[in-house]
Amino acid sequence: MDRPPLSPTPRSTIRRVSSRAINDRDALDAVLDEGLVCHLAFVHDGVPVVLPMGYGRDGDTLYLHGSTGARSLRIAEGTAVCVAVTLLDAVVYARSVFHFSMNYRSAVIYAPVQQVVEESERLRGLAVIVEHMAPGSWSYARRPNRRELAATAVIALDLTESSVKIRAGEPADEPEDIATGTVWAGLLPLRSIWNKPEPAGNLPSEVDVPEHILRRCGVGR
Amino acid sequence: MDRPPLSPTPRSTIRRVSSRAINDRDALDAVLDEGLVCHLAFVHDGVPVVLPMGYGRDGDTLYLHGSTGARSLRIAEGTAVCVAVTLLDAVVYARSVFHFSMNYRSAVIYAPVQQVVEESERLRGLAVIVEHMAPGSWSYARRPNRRELAATAVIALDLTESSVKIRAGEPADEPEDIATGTVWAGLLPLRSIWNKPEPAGNLPSEVDVPEHILRRCGVGR
Repeated sequence: MDRPPLSPTPRSTIRRVSSRAINDRDALDAVLDEGLVCHLAFVHDGVPVVLPMGYGRDGDTLYLHGSTGARSLRIAEGTAVCVAVTLLDAVVYARSVFHFSMNYRSAVIYAPVQQVVEESERLRGLAVIVEHMAPGSWSYARRPNRRELAATAVIALDLTESSVKIRAGEPADEPEDIATGTVWAGLLPLRSIWNKPEPAGNLPSEVDVPEHILRRCGVGR
Repeated sequence: MDRPPLSPTPRSTIRRVSSRAINDRDALDAVLDEGLVCHLAFVHDGVPVVLPMGYGRDGDTLYLHGSTGARSLRIAEGTAVCVAVTLLDAVVYARSVFHFSMNYRSAVIYAPVQQVVEESERLRGLAVIVEHMAPGSWSYARRPNRRELAATAVIALDLTESSVKIRAGEPADEPEDIATGTVWAGLLPLRSIWNKPEPAGNLPSEVDVPEHILRRCGVGR
């Protein structure tokens, strides 16, 4: 599939260490699909606010959801927001503290809020979010009823104006520090792993952990 | 130590599911000390921007640093910013998709930017950040020289106006879904682990991984 590069507007153009910028939609999708939590920034009473939340991606749209009572999701249609998803891969230990860093992959999205009003589209957004948070669950668990759906706000953000920034690889030390050759330098990689599923206390003991959850945490059969 | 509770200003008062709000400085410290990346939100040309960055905490002050060329750290003295640190503990699988959730611990800080100008204080801030990112490294690696220090901006944020939100424990299903007793519900816990240190390609083979790094990744002696 031939997809246009990410939008190079002034605000989505990475200026610092621009060699780390990737104008590639597949790179954006990869970061968004691997992350689980995004940070949504918006302006409330003139002051910036940033809150963590779940999300899901469908093509070029990012969906966020929350209670209709949450101020973060009562943002007026068309209002500019910004969302970041960050994956931390390693702490970079250098010979000098100046060059300490982190290896990471991050996506930053600038978009106007689209309130998803129409019921079938809201249901579609929720399915995307649930399937991102817990793949296989939309067809397994009970779907929202009318009351639940009415209590859930969904917003959609277009992914066109986004940027991806990646730092990978080795520490970038000064030649004279490398030449000294006495201080350890390298990466301390970090990764997220799933632990074993923990059944709810009120779950009947005969209800087995379903396939889609076993697969996720690598306790396959 | 008797510390005052976190500030209950309107914007730092948690309204959604307020039972999850913790007005306790020790809880704030615990979240900040465990996290490695924060998300800083600020307003640039009237639009919210959120970016990931490293940080460090010293008592009631959060330090952030970056290049003096980074727009995120050229924020004028006194400008309001917001910082979030989020730790994800589990995906909560419920009997109904409406009750799917995440277990998390998150801190949100509202503060005016304090540009750290004085050199010894800037050095102090950098030490706090490096020791948070890589404990033991400030006394092990080479300290910043004049040129490096001049190229590094440090901002300080007071932690007084902060909130902590925690979701822990079981899924919160509807009584009728629990009664059906056929859908699995519970937690899929997630945790971050360190992998083994990876020496830089240009590191002489006789330079051992130092104690402070071995301790961190549990490859102790």
